[in-house]
Amino acid sequence: MKFIIYGAGALGSLFAALLSRKHDVLIVGREKHIEAIEKNGLIVEGITSGVFHPETRWDGSQYDLIILTTKAYDTSQATKEARKKFGEIPFLSLQNGLKNEEKIAKIAGEKNVIGGITNHGVTFLEYGRIKHAGYGETVIGEMDGRVSDRIRKIAKAFNEAGIKTMVSEKIKEEIWRKAIINSAINGLTSILKCKNGELIKYKNLVKEICDEGSMVARKEGFTIENAFEKTMEVIERTADNYSSMLQDIMKGKKTEVEEINGEIAKVANKHGIKACYNIVLTKMIKEMENVGTQVGLLVIKSRRGP
Amino acid sequence: MKFIIYGAGALGSLFAALLSRKHDVLIVGREKHIEAIEKNGLIVEGITSGVFHPETRWDGSQYDLIILTTKAYDTSQATKEARKKFGEIPFLSLQNGLKNEEKIAKIAGEKNVIGGITNHGVTFLEYGRIKHAGYGETVIGEMDGRVSDRIRKIAKAFNEAGIKTMVSEKIKEEIWRKAIINSAINGLTSILKCKNGELIKYKNLVKEICDEGSMVARKEGFTIENAFEKTMEVIERTADNYSSMLQDIMKGKKTEVEEINGEIAKVANKHGIKACYNIVLTKMIKEMENVGTQVGLLVIKSRRGP
Repeated sequence: MKFIIYGAGALGSLFAALLSRKHDVLIVGREKHIEAIEKNGLIVEGITSGVFHPETRWDGSQYDLIILTTKAYDTSQATKEARKKFGEIPFLSLQNGLKNEEKIAKIAGEKNVIGGITNHGVTFLEYGRIKHAGYGETVIGEMDGRVSDRIRKIAKAFNEAGIKTMVSEKIKEEIWRKAIINSAINGLTSILKCKNGELIKYKNLVKEICDEGSMVARKEGFTIENAFEKTMEVIERTADNYSSMLQDIMKGKKTEVEEINGEIAKVANKHGIKACYNIVLTKMIKEMENVGTQVGLLVIKSRRGP
Repeated sequence: MKFIIYGAGALGSLFAALLSRKHDVLIVGREKHIEAIEKNGLIVEGITSGVFHPETRWDGSQYDLIILTTKAYDTSQATKEARKKFGEIPFLSLQNGLKNEEKIAKIAGEKNVIGGITNHGVTFLEYGRIKHAGYGETVIGEMDGRVSDRIRKIAKAFNEAGIKTMVSEKIKEEIWRKAIINSAINGLTSILKCKNGELIKYKNLVKEICDEGSMVARKEGFTIENAFEKTMEVIERTADNYSSMLQDIMKGKKTEVEEINGEIAKVANKHGIKACYNIVLTKMIKEMENVGTQVGLLVIKSRRGP
């Protein structure tokens, strides 16, 4: 198959690298990243290791799928640009947050949207170089739940390239689940300025945030089972990582808090509910972005146990 | 006049020292603190400087007023003990939080409660030694607003001893105002683990917390004007201080968050309102207490400004 990776940061670059082993891949991203790839290839370190050579310039040929991997606050803009450049091709979103598929549908049409989530751990080291830090599953699905031909084909193509991928008939629930997990882990680590693993000590807070998100999802008709347990699993698996949101804050960059916690709060509000954790986390993290707090060195010691 | 300072930590010890210049003062506190005072006197450094000699053992004589200066979570217990030991004497609360006067009244009777607030900055250095870090005003008042003889007498006695004191006919509003100021400064500095002055950058959050508290107070019939502006004044005046709540967290001690933010949230709840900031700050800080996070060394640099 022929894939366009649109908005390749860390995760998009990993998909470009892995897919390029078996498929035609065009990678679209920031010019400096693309130039570095043209010069030295796309260098992947960590649990995947190698130098990969996705296409970097469009030859005008027809592609099968645009995989959108931009930050969630860039979804609409990126969809418009990609649509303008590449014409009517389906989009698969592998982003964070709740509203990406809706935003894409508004621009590209409902039938051209496929939902997806992925849990790979990837870090952007420098232009042209990323680190694959942890394996994760990828789940894709049609927004209406059908197991269509195209969804089967994409899953097959991903799996052939070594990207473990499943098809879900309930992709919206998967997207909600991931948003809830992120709302707790990204939200709390950003406020507490700690590694994911530190949250093991803040279990009660993690639980309350997961419960709040699950309650909001239920109002939308989605039953998210065991959100707390799943979140604790992710915390344990990624204990030594800094969450992407905290990394953004540390770098003085914009975070995805509005697209994750902010959206949960908005949906709650629509149903007449005040989702306090998500409201307060959103406001606090937006304010931290504005202030531009940098965590130069943090030594937070626990009095008890490891 | 004859004063008992009951539960003398930093603030109580300052009052004991200052009042002892003109009045009979009996200081009641932790045994090690009392022993140090008996051995070396009560040593005050900073903007008040000297060695003071309040009484440390009760001679059985009648006193005029018990000034309660314990942590707010100890109010009921301390009132019971003081009442048992010293009999029916009026109490003046100079504590933090919202419910002290109510708790005292339940035990000592309504007519034996006087409300008060004070804004002195005092630090406990070691047993027998405190630092007077900043002057502040003291405001006292009868709970029903009357300007009684006894309130006049107490204010006069305080002023004679160099404690600038005013009588308010609206002491309940003063107590609410102080609780709101504390809810913002103590709450935020504890979560963000920063000095008070750092909050100048988090003005929007300070404002939202002050607005929330003022809204809750209004439901109780109290109009707290300019809570935000007053809070910013305190932040600027105490920029270089760590708030008492953050100090407690750093020392692994119990905080007064339930008596400050927690009470505001409870009152809101009584009126059918979810006070999100106060709910979330209370839960997060209680959890931080449980975890026992110690801030060993914090270097948080701002990208912008000075």
